[in-house]
Amino acid sequence: MPTVNMSGEDDLIARYFKPLATDPGARGLVDDAAVLAASGSDLVLTTDAIVEGVHYLPDDPPAAIARKALRVNLSDLAAKGATPAGFLLTLALRNADESFLAPFAEALGQDAAAYGCPLLGGDTVSTPGPMMISVTALGRVPAGAMVRRDALRPGDTIVVTGTIGDAALGLDLLLGRTTATTARDRDFLIGRYREPQPRSALAETVRRHARAAMDISDGLAGDLAKMCAASGVTATLEAAAVPLSSAARTMIGNGAAALQRILSGGDDYELLCGIAADQLDAFLAAAQRSAVPAAVIGTAADGTAAPRWLDANGCEVSLTALSYSHF
Amino acid sequence: MPTVNMSGEDDLIARYFKPLATDPGARGLVDDAAVLAASGSDLVLTTDAIVEGVHYLPDDPPAAIARKALRVNLSDLAAKGATPAGFLLTLALRNADESFLAPFAEALGQDAAAYGCPLLGGDTVSTPGPMMISVTALGRVPAGAMVRRDALRPGDTIVVTGTIGDAALGLDLLLGRTTATTARDRDFLIGRYREPQPRSALAETVRRHARAAMDISDGLAGDLAKMCAASGVTATLEAAAVPLSSAARTMIGNGAAALQRILSGGDDYELLCGIAADQLDAFLAAAQRSAVPAAVIGTAADGTAAPRWLDANGCEVSLTALSYSHF
Repeated sequence: MPTVNMSGEDDLIARYFKPLATDPGARGLVDDAAVLAASGSDLVLTTDAIVEGVHYLPDDPPAAIARKALRVNLSDLAAKGATPAGFLLTLALRNADESFLAPFAEALGQDAAAYGCPLLGGDTVSTPGPMMISVTALGRVPAGAMVRRDALRPGDTIVVTGTIGDAALGLDLLLGRTTATTARDRDFLIGRYREPQPRSALAETVRRHARAAMDISDGLAGDLAKMCAASGVTATLEAAAVPLSSAARTMIGNGAAALQRILSGGDDYELLCGIAADQLDAFLAAAQRSAVPAAVIGTAADGTAAPRWLDANGCEVSLTALSYSHF
Repeated sequence: MPTVNMSGEDDLIARYFKPLATDPGARGLVDDAAVLAASGSDLVLTTDAIVEGVHYLPDDPPAAIARKALRVNLSDLAAKGATPAGFLLTLALRNADESFLAPFAEALGQDAAAYGCPLLGGDTVSTPGPMMISVTALGRVPAGAMVRRDALRPGDTIVVTGTIGDAALGLDLLLGRTTATTARDRDFLIGRYREPQPRSALAETVRRHARAAMDISDGLAGDLAKMCAASGVTATLEAAAVPLSSAARTMIGNGAAALQRILSGGDDYELLCGIAADQLDAFLAAAQRSAVPAAVIGTAADGTAAPRWLDANGCEVSLTALSYSHF
């Protein structure tokens, strides 16, 4: 018999989230704070929130929402060359709905185990508005080894992982903005929108061989422009070299999708890397060993002009919107 | 002339929050992640969110909202004996309203400087619903030295800082649930609700001299019950020994406030400590040197029953609700 009546909030945490707090530093989620033991590593910190109706749709499956909330942060850690150490979770909920929380927590726990990123702590609050899930993820790198976005140098080769634009097309399909040719392509593209695949397997490769890196979350064109601006360089990109899934290629071929949308749509959660000439072969070989596709799409150059996108004929492609902005 | 058009989101971050990112590890808020350099210290992590209409009122001043968002987290760090290292900020906004953001960011920057807790990174997202501010604060303690809430032992003296119940009465006044006798008392109590005073000055004292500690955020009675339950002990408390402000004392005296509300109301952000007999004098002397009031309110004891609250006649006080719960 419990001698203290737990509040609804404590009960919710104990039932759904304590099983995810496998690290001793999480202190079973019963203390005010978590602790990460001292180590010789630098700590890499990133935080990304997702809001119902903005970053995911109200009828997205709870398991997919959980995976997205954690994975968008794991993607940032991978881009910085960091090994996951754990995460803190802030949940703003309208109510403690078991039919949401049970599959949400189960999927989150599976991902936490799969990516070696245990729940360390969090906060659960009520809100009268849309649900929001905010994750702060922590990772480790050897001292001084975090890979920066502002380190791109003229002559560096620009590489992206995976395929670009799938998530934006998946969102367009969910919203009825366009139609896919086959149910299979539709499922694939929606899956790419709902469940990012963070390139955690490449974190060490990025750390060893990339000069600059970031994850692509707000659209390739805009994120590349940010990397160039932060680094004080420009770049020339081959639009035709941007890797596309066969589903995206089909939609472009039949007019159901536009190149502009591929290059500026968000939610790719692939890696964008600048690689020095003497590291390129090693990077590409390591990516291949990790079974992560990696494609060369351009080269950085001296200058501060906006990056130029060229089509297959060498003519400049004009992009009217570079990326998604909340405001 | 900028060569890349900043998005509204990037512009908002550059204008309002970059000035707060004074730590080199924040990387000027232009990277995907922040970095905390390796040190011999353990890292203490805490996260607390505040939601408009739940933790603060829509017409609370933006500066007060900023201070509350950070200070509720600084309070957790102080309770764990940790020195602030920095924080991450997630802002969910309906729009980029300068009349809110300018005073919000200014006050946040003042607190960040005053408490030595610089902005390290964050995320800004749009929401169609109520505003939400989620802060993850990081602190440092010597390896193994984080003060826990589950370490209270039978015979330990139970001490609280400051005065209890003011914030709950302040909220009651704001909501018109009760009335204060004087405008000055009203201002004082509302100030205690809107702008917590984290006991950061006592962090080292807590680390050196307290056996167990937590901050009081959900009501003294409930938080004490949680500390006892986590520690596997019980306690006996003297209700008359709970330190009250003169404003709260006046309201109790004239019937405008009830003891139940004082003991179970939330938002105190004072410290609750369990102190071994041989450390009590040192703790109280150090608190006095830091000009933080500290009061002995009871003693921990063997057993697993709920803590007992006694009135001035030694009769048990019955508390129907121990603390605030979101669900």
